[in-house]
Amino acid sequence: MDEKSRIPRPTAKRLTLYFRQIRTLAAAGRKTINSRQLGAALGLTGAQVRKDLACFGQFGHPGVGYQIPSLHEQLRQLLGRDRTWNAVLVGAGNIGRALLSYDRFSSEDFRIVAVCDADPSLVGSEWGGREVLAMDRIESAVHEHDAKLGIIAVPDHAAQQVADLLVEAGIEGILNFSPRRLDVDETVSISSVDFTRSLEQLAFQISFGVSGTEEDE
Amino acid sequence: MDEKSRIPRPTAKRLTLYFRQIRTLAAAGRKTINSRQLGAALGLTGAQVRKDLACFGQFGHPGVGYQIPSLHEQLRQLLGRDRTWNAVLVGAGNIGRALLSYDRFSSEDFRIVAVCDADPSLVGSEWGGREVLAMDRIESAVHEHDAKLGIIAVPDHAAQQVADLLVEAGIEGILNFSPRRLDVDETVSISSVDFTRSLEQLAFQISFGVSGTEEDE
Repeated sequence: MDEKSRIPRPTAKRLTLYFRQIRTLAAAGRKTINSRQLGAALGLTGAQVRKDLACFGQFGHPGVGYQIPSLHEQLRQLLGRDRTWNAVLVGAGNIGRALLSYDRFSSEDFRIVAVCDADPSLVGSEWGGREVLAMDRIESAVHEHDAKLGIIAVPDHAAQQVADLLVEAGIEGILNFSPRRLDVDETVSISSVDFTRSLEQLAFQISFGVSGTEEDE
Repeated sequence: MDEKSRIPRPTAKRLTLYFRQIRTLAAAGRKTINSRQLGAALGLTGAQVRKDLACFGQFGHPGVGYQIPSLHEQLRQLLGRDRTWNAVLVGAGNIGRALLSYDRFSSEDFRIVAVCDADPSLVGSEWGGREVLAMDRIESAVHEHDAKLGIIAVPDHAAQQVADLLVEAGIEGILNFSPRRLDVDETVSISSVDFTRSLEQLAFQISFGVSGTEEDE
């Protein structure tokens, strides 16, 4: 296990929050920030921020804080945001449509480069400027666009099969909108979005009197 | 702080996973399960399962395990799943449409009882069997249906204002599809679904060589 892998996953999650904040400040031309200020915007203590950033060798200077330009660049590389991520979307239903129209995709570093669907009546139609492709085109779409990400927005029963096709095509990460737990090679990263599970959590929190947001974890 | 509030949040998250599993087993008529078997289906150790269930006084018997019917009933009550949760959806765009057509809502214990939107051209139209209401009807919809949950699926800039309206109407939990961090009273629970953040996490995991699913946390 190399040095990098020793960063704990909750820290990794917070790094993306720091990155967003630092990116905004860098764009505004600000030069320095201390750990307390950086934490305050995210509901974290200065101590937590210092601990997290020390994980990858960033140390603020007492009375000065962190240099924003260098912190920005370092986080950008660390988080893989120094390049554009191409994604192949499988499933041209309502969720797929919501994703294609999601205005943040255009301004962020992620692009849906192809849409595939199993429904022959949809194949060949245009969706957000992209032609809907048949399922047997997944592999060529992944290769053509050098896509590293796959998005699964198909009915539950088809999710595992689609995951297999994506992994076989060489996808390294999957955003999964099916509530199904996918069985994939352990080298593939999966991030699941399960609306029902989010609602279940809310129901539990309300019943149980546990308040607060998920970000508090 | 009462006894209940001492359950750690990660445990609380796992309880909903145990509940799903136990509910399936109960429906299949199975009577007992041991901690190792329950954990195996979820990628957890038996020790973790025993520790989690002991949090609320459930102890398995050596050589027998847990009684499924009583564990099912206890989890059901604990998680607030012994009743139906009504939700008011604000935002009749693509995400709202995806939620309304999400087939799991019909079979689960959550119901979208009303849809509100700020667009006058949508108000009065029918959406999945529900009339789209104007924003000034949020409060009456919440009261009429005794809704405890609000779902925010509006453009970013409107999210905080909608959150304020929902909280004022008496909503206790919010499912937030806006990437905006909502500022609400601390008694209100919030669960956020942010697609971009999920993609950022994947990009990071791939760049960094950290594989695995979010559920592993």
